[in-house]
Amino acid sequence: MTPLPSPLRDLIAAIPPISHAARDAAAKRQDQLTKPQGSLGRLEELSIRLAGMTANPRPRFASPAVIVGAGDHGICAEGVSAFPSEVTPQMVANFLAGGAAINVLSRQAGARVVVVDFGVAADLSDTPGLVHARIAAGTQNFARGMAMTREQALEAILAGAEVVTSAARQSLDLVAVGEMGIGNTTPASALTTVFTGQPVAKVTGRGTGISDAALAHKIDVIERALALHQLDAEDPLGVLAAVGGFEIAGLAGVMLAAAARRIPVVLDGFITGSAALVAARLAPAVTDYMVASHVSVECGHPVILDNLGLVPLFNLDLRLGEGSGAALALPMVRAAAAILDEMATFDEAGVSEGEP
Amino acid sequence: MTPLPSPLRDLIAAIPPISHAARDAAAKRQDQLTKPQGSLGRLEELSIRLAGMTANPRPRFASPAVIVGAGDHGICAEGVSAFPSEVTPQMVANFLAGGAAINVLSRQAGARVVVVDFGVAADLSDTPGLVHARIAAGTQNFARGMAMTREQALEAILAGAEVVTSAARQSLDLVAVGEMGIGNTTPASALTTVFTGQPVAKVTGRGTGISDAALAHKIDVIERALALHQLDAEDPLGVLAAVGGFEIAGLAGVMLAAAARRIPVVLDGFITGSAALVAARLAPAVTDYMVASHVSVECGHPVILDNLGLVPLFNLDLRLGEGSGAALALPMVRAAAAILDEMATFDEAGVSEGEP
Repeated sequence: MTPLPSPLRDLIAAIPPISHAARDAAAKRQDQLTKPQGSLGRLEELSIRLAGMTANPRPRFASPAVIVGAGDHGICAEGVSAFPSEVTPQMVANFLAGGAAINVLSRQAGARVVVVDFGVAADLSDTPGLVHARIAAGTQNFARGMAMTREQALEAILAGAEVVTSAARQSLDLVAVGEMGIGNTTPASALTTVFTGQPVAKVTGRGTGISDAALAHKIDVIERALALHQLDAEDPLGVLAAVGGFEIAGLAGVMLAAAARRIPVVLDGFITGSAALVAARLAPAVTDYMVASHVSVECGHPVILDNLGLVPLFNLDLRLGEGSGAALALPMVRAAAAILDEMATFDEAGVSEGEP
Repeated sequence: MTPLPSPLRDLIAAIPPISHAARDAAAKRQDQLTKPQGSLGRLEELSIRLAGMTANPRPRFASPAVIVGAGDHGICAEGVSAFPSEVTPQMVANFLAGGAAINVLSRQAGARVVVVDFGVAADLSDTPGLVHARIAAGTQNFARGMAMTREQALEAILAGAEVVTSAARQSLDLVAVGEMGIGNTTPASALTTVFTGQPVAKVTGRGTGISDAALAHKIDVIERALALHQLDAEDPLGVLAAVGGFEIAGLAGVMLAAAARRIPVVLDGFITGSAALVAARLAPAVTDYMVASHVSVECGHPVILDNLGLVPLFNLDLRLGEGSGAALALPMVRAAAAILDEMATFDEAGVSEGEP
């Protein structure tokens, strides 16, 4: 593995192992609560994982944020998306005005939305409410060369980490991740192929909704790009630089920094999944801090979740991104923690236990 | 089909067809919102169904209630449950004290809990906070005779309807249903066998957690009871009286009365599913007002959902009951409605649409 730059090494080294003591205490408490043991199924398992992540046997989440990374993609020049790149800044404006799906779902979940420009092509430097972390005006076309330099990939990861540091100053105990970037299923498919070893055709879908012919073209573009770059999965920073995206890199940084602070990270769909793959290749321990919200329609997404060893909470045939599935999962995550913390035990409630 | 008593006929006749106009307006609006068409998958479908149920193209749910019906079961004398019947009133007390799973999950969802005694064996007449609608001190042992009289079955259904009428006086626009009744997976399995035609063994599970031997015994008890009663699925009131439960009958009444008021009903697991079967056999139109929250571990539950034509929102391996899965689904139901109502359209947000 290529040696990592020192700020990234430090970020990775800061990720603690989960607390077995807190996890075990939570598991023990679950068995004392007034319900047949295990009868809340995966909600119990989730609560126990959350205890391990937070090192708190009875965690609560009062300050969740949905961190939405935006970026543009040079690969759009190859005609891989149903929408033009101008939609990326338009949707960023929609996020900031509160009219997008992620705003509605975050309001419902009682979570604030943090919108970050990691590399939108349009100049958004005067846009109020936006977190400015732009590395460049979109990536380069990775069908022709590197999407970004290795230094830019590092810079984007560290910028994502800084978003968490900054949000934590205000108070932050649960992170949901989302993204916006016309064309970004294409780098996500390329990253998924490299990191999971699955064929491009198996992990490449219709994104926002392209035709059969456009899908075949998209697969061909990715296959040719991967043939050009000859990537090594053991060099995740190199892979990210070659075929990634600025918002994908930034979100990988968000995940690493959240884990370093013992903050659970709720993943969304395929794009945030590809960022999770990058983060996991850099720091395998980060997956212990990840919660899979849903499995999306994009065919590469179940491949990613399987690779990360994560089981999604639901499947609603979503394929929007933005963090929509992650935001929908926030009430479930908080409910899992509330069950653990608030339910009465058999002793407290004077309820008879079942036969052993 | 045996003629139904006139108050029940009136209740059934009061259920309106869903509004096709509201449903179509909602579907049209979904396609104008700032997201690729259909990209919120089943959340969009749910919002469109909710519009049809409420006859409102942009429904909102401000006053949800979880209605939890409790009752005891004479069939427990046959040794079909891991917990003793005394746990039913103990858990009712736990519900009223706020320490049970359903309390925690309802608080998280911002829903009030209405606990109804439809037929607990213990005398709870002095219990404050409880809705008193007790038909009798538990059902009779249906392995030996009728669980209740036909008149009692009717009385319980109408009592459930009255709970909705009463709750609606305070304000009610969304109902989740739950139950508590030691032994009630046994009548639920018997009802499921009669109404779906599936073998007892296929629809009978471990309830709160019985052993292999106890499960075989439970199946045998139900098979012998059904051989004794020789029931006719075309006579739902007769089936309910023979092998049902008071809380199951009461919840069927809740469902019918909610549908009559265009109030969506969020189902929970196997027991509320068996009540839904009863309601649907009495009034097929009631299923248009039902939302399936989850599919439970109880093997009869997917059989019921399939029979009702409902697709669950999630599967978390739950097997608690109480309304726990239904309460967990409430944030999703409200989120679906909020998406429809609050999101900006492409025109409003100035976002370019994709290629056709």
